[in-house]
Amino acid sequence: MNPAPNDAASPLAPSPGTVYLVGAGPGDPDLLTVKAQRLLAQCDVVVYDALVSAGILAAVNPHAQRIYAGKSKGHHTLPQPEITALLIEKAWQYRQIVRLKGGDPFVFGRGGEEMLALVQAGIPVEVVPGVTAGIAVPAYAGIPVTHRELSSSVLLVTGHEEAGKYRPYVNWRQLATAVETIVIYMGMHHLDVILKELSLGGLDHHTPVAILRWGTTPHQTRTLTTLGSLLSPTQAPPDLTPPAIVVIGAVVNLSHVLPEILIAHNWQDPRNNS
Amino acid sequence: MNPAPNDAASPLAPSPGTVYLVGAGPGDPDLLTVKAQRLLAQCDVVVYDALVSAGILAAVNPHAQRIYAGKSKGHHTLPQPEITALLIEKAWQYRQIVRLKGGDPFVFGRGGEEMLALVQAGIPVEVVPGVTAGIAVPAYAGIPVTHRELSSSVLLVTGHEEAGKYRPYVNWRQLATAVETIVIYMGMHHLDVILKELSLGGLDHHTPVAILRWGTTPHQTRTLTTLGSLLSPTQAPPDLTPPAIVVIGAVVNLSHVLPEILIAHNWQDPRNNS
Repeated sequence: MNPAPNDAASPLAPSPGTVYLVGAGPGDPDLLTVKAQRLLAQCDVVVYDALVSAGILAAVNPHAQRIYAGKSKGHHTLPQPEITALLIEKAWQYRQIVRLKGGDPFVFGRGGEEMLALVQAGIPVEVVPGVTAGIAVPAYAGIPVTHRELSSSVLLVTGHEEAGKYRPYVNWRQLATAVETIVIYMGMHHLDVILKELSLGGLDHHTPVAILRWGTTPHQTRTLTTLGSLLSPTQAPPDLTPPAIVVIGAVVNLSHVLPEILIAHNWQDPRNNS
Repeated sequence: MNPAPNDAASPLAPSPGTVYLVGAGPGDPDLLTVKAQRLLAQCDVVVYDALVSAGILAAVNPHAQRIYAGKSKGHHTLPQPEITALLIEKAWQYRQIVRLKGGDPFVFGRGGEEMLALVQAGIPVEVVPGVTAGIAVPAYAGIPVTHRELSSSVLLVTGHEEAGKYRPYVNWRQLATAVETIVIYMGMHHLDVILKELSLGGLDHHTPVAILRWGTTPHQTRTLTTLGSLLSPTQAPPDLTPPAIVVIGAVVNLSHVLPEILIAHNWQDPRNNS
């Protein structure tokens, strides 16, 4: 059923290709790593997620097979075991398989799970770290996640764990005052609960909060507010549609002074962005 | 005293060049971003830090002026106000100035401080996020900093704040059990104090710890141990010479199963690394 391997491996001693778990960065194709760009240009197959932008897909070898594993309107994401099975199947058919994930594969990208499954199946696998959204999206909005005198630590945390994707459950009350900067990934669906828990944990209501939607893409928006304002029933809530990164902490105030980076709409030539 | 600007700007209306605060990533030139690579190839001046590797400097425009701002044996780092003054001076002489920092400029790289000073001096400045060592160095050692069932949060924290570089002081006791994965940057000089504080904060002595030196470079080493072992007076301490990233948490155990990435010694051609 499988087509013949497309490399020079002997048909008498077939060996699987290599799966590269590649971080695509947060959206701007300029934030791809050199290695990611090279692998995309060379690969035989790419299996990609919802948050991988059109500009990044433009870097994929035009002859490569493209398989979308992300969520589309009204459809669920390909279940994790199916993605793993697909990668194993493709590894026995092709030489270079890129599993392309938004941001960094090991920061809430479930890259560790996929890697474990591939190792157990005897498939060579290598991770290619990427620029993570939790650091780069704030940077494009003029927010350094650490800053002398303001923040000696930054917590990257998923807001999605209630949905069963990540355990153990995040102890929001305990960490409310333990760290200076909190960056929440996938926090939109549970933001009200998270903010209440942080408040109950003792986080000051004047603490600045940034809601950064579509960061590092042409659709980038930045909403600056405070914990108290977001918790107030009389204030109109900001747009909380995903994708978004939420930053909580004093460093958010630097965005009033530091420049924002805005990306041009022309994804075809990433050189226009700089 | 200043040489004439080397661009097409009118000498009658001189305007400063742009300073790019560029993240070089953790060491492997393959982890440079596409944008960083392009700016290095184009720039007129590069001001770089100690942790920028030879392989990355190979990507710098051979005609560019190179200024080393890092620490060398027996000498201190160029003080921060002098670095800022240097960048402002160069911005009035040249068109593209790259301020190159290891990892990401906004993760303990003092990029925010330099950016603020440049904004206040009226110099156009732009950040180029990079792959941060605290995520990529563990990845090369087979450690995903987040992992379903093991870690829903990762704290990036500096171990250097006692030296006055970062404030507020880190409350190690409070965060000991608040987060699942702790990644310490620049933790070598104070590691004994930090580990004692984490222990006093309730962190289990069986908690695995990885000490990752020279990560993503040809000199990469990985030491796997536990909090209890590191605190035991009868155990020989591992090599704690910087540079190193320390990872604390259950995810460290995955490095017994997941593959390590080892980098070839030939920095001249980064394509040999993959």
